[in-house]
Amino acid sequence: LDEFSLIQRYFSAPGSFAGENDVILGIGDDTAILKVAENEELLVTTDTLISGVHFPKNTDPRAIGHKALAVNLSDIAAMGGDARWFTLALSLPEPDPEWLQAFSDGLLSLAKEVDVRLVGGDTTRGELSITISVMGTAPDAGAIRRSGARPGDSIFVTGSPGFAAMGLAALKGMKNQSAIERVEYVNKLNYPQARLLEGQFLRAFATSMIDVSDGLAADLGHILQASNCSAFIDSEKLKNLQPQSSSVPKKQFLEAALYGGDDYELLFTIPPEKIMMFEQNWLESFSCVTRLGEITPGEGLIIKDSNGKNMNIDNTGYNHFHE
Amino acid sequence: LDEFSLIQRYFSAPGSFAGENDVILGIGDDTAILKVAENEELLVTTDTLISGVHFPKNTDPRAIGHKALAVNLSDIAAMGGDARWFTLALSLPEPDPEWLQAFSDGLLSLAKEVDVRLVGGDTTRGELSITISVMGTAPDAGAIRRSGARPGDSIFVTGSPGFAAMGLAALKGMKNQSAIERVEYVNKLNYPQARLLEGQFLRAFATSMIDVSDGLAADLGHILQASNCSAFIDSEKLKNLQPQSSSVPKKQFLEAALYGGDDYELLFTIPPEKIMMFEQNWLESFSCVTRLGEITPGEGLIIKDSNGKNMNIDNTGYNHFHE
Repeated sequence: LDEFSLIQRYFSAPGSFAGENDVILGIGDDTAILKVAENEELLVTTDTLISGVHFPKNTDPRAIGHKALAVNLSDIAAMGGDARWFTLALSLPEPDPEWLQAFSDGLLSLAKEVDVRLVGGDTTRGELSITISVMGTAPDAGAIRRSGARPGDSIFVTGSPGFAAMGLAALKGMKNQSAIERVEYVNKLNYPQARLLEGQFLRAFATSMIDVSDGLAADLGHILQASNCSAFIDSEKLKNLQPQSSSVPKKQFLEAALYGGDDYELLFTIPPEKIMMFEQNWLESFSCVTRLGEITPGEGLIIKDSNGKNMNIDNTGYNHFHE
Repeated sequence: LDEFSLIQRYFSAPGSFAGENDVILGIGDDTAILKVAENEELLVTTDTLISGVHFPKNTDPRAIGHKALAVNLSDIAAMGGDARWFTLALSLPEPDPEWLQAFSDGLLSLAKEVDVRLVGGDTTRGELSITISVMGTAPDAGAIRRSGARPGDSIFVTGSPGFAAMGLAALKGMKNQSAIERVEYVNKLNYPQARLLEGQFLRAFATSMIDVSDGLAADLGHILQASNCSAFIDSEKLKNLQPQSSSVPKKQFLEAALYGGDDYELLFTIPPEKIMMFEQNWLESFSCVTRLGEITPGEGLIIKDSNGKNMNIDNTGYNHFHE
């Protein structure tokens, strides 16, 4: 595997990037040289996708390329950051030109779309595995952590949690979805969209934020633990996100929304004094967002059913929706 | 594999770090938050080690941990940078506590020694593979690239190129080494030392620099290509680096020094007007360095034998000293 020619051939970024001036030296030397501005902090995250663990072995390489970058971008989004640069460590059993072309198309078209620049790479021979590290920036002291939620804050989630888990269930042979919803679910699983602009917008409003990767209940748990708080959420709000045309039982959809992972939606908290401004401004720029419940004092998460009664948190649900 | 508890248990850095103030937020949120100073540039590199490809499968996990970080630090050293932070993506077949403890000991004791901080991680289940990304800094416009060599510059290499390749040859069953030299060679292979302080010192002197990872001839070739130059080197200078007690034929040692990889020594060029100052100052702080030859106009690399005649560059030598 000739590392340099592989990177040159498949991973030279198409066209130019807006942030070009910040890449003083890109691929081709011992390291990249980058410039972070004086009033910015550097954000760094890394995530690995392994074939057969994080995606089914027969997944379209274009989707693999897209998703390997998207899951990392989502971590930058969850801090309210601006994604700027990334490195790619690609391990491949055999260099297959067709596979590589589709993979790099998926990867680089997302990179171009969100203006994030490939600045370093390493290719090795091994089982198919992709590790990407993304570097981003946020204004000094501007990044939103998990630890800032306070009792009285409202809990919101963007988009459609549960769709990715339903997509995985479909690929694993679950037959009770309509053809239309199946397409939508699988698309959400394969081509998650990191909510970078929403995250940056939320810097002015959110007290805490995380992206939904492990599942909504688990990730809200991470906020609660970091913030030393409790919370309740209304399960009806999640059920309402099920598509009208869906042929899947409501209970099953709710489980996907609560315990399924891989959604890469933003889950965040807004303090009472900012709710009105948040809601007005959100709708000018973005679409679907759902108020799920509220942060409370104490410990643990309470999920309420349609009658306002506490549901059992079904941790076994997790296993249905994960590889 | 419970990612969070694994990272907490094995990869919490021991003790405190000098650069602590630059880590605004470490492991435990969606991203790390780091501070790069106004007058600094950010350096980024990434490298993967895969079991059976980059090290024999039965390698001591302490050595694997050390080396996975060292090879990345070496890239920062080769730019003249200061290594500051790193992320770890670890893929493991089974979480074996004994293995993990030794691996993290090797990794973190090197991290502590050179004051580089683990700021993010991801653990997944798969074949044993380690991807590390290191971030460093250099003063604005201070990093040394491969492209600055000019005709008349002298070519130097630190330490003992060839030892790592001789170590690999020993592990692969080559029997003609003395017991003492074998220990030294295998130690060099397993515990390479990134020449960070030397690299920083060289910012004031070197016109170009690279670390020897592919082999001295190949890596000098990268400098020549990036700098549009030719060069000659004197093979006797490399033969002289063979230990006195060595029982290996000189020709074999020379091949290891020229074509063997994994040395992580610094290879650099010094312009004529700086040679005296360089040599005087070097010896105050560091030890072994060897002047190998000179940059010339034109293309390609000439290796001279003991009679000053041109040797054939034996690219097949590469295969003897690589997995």
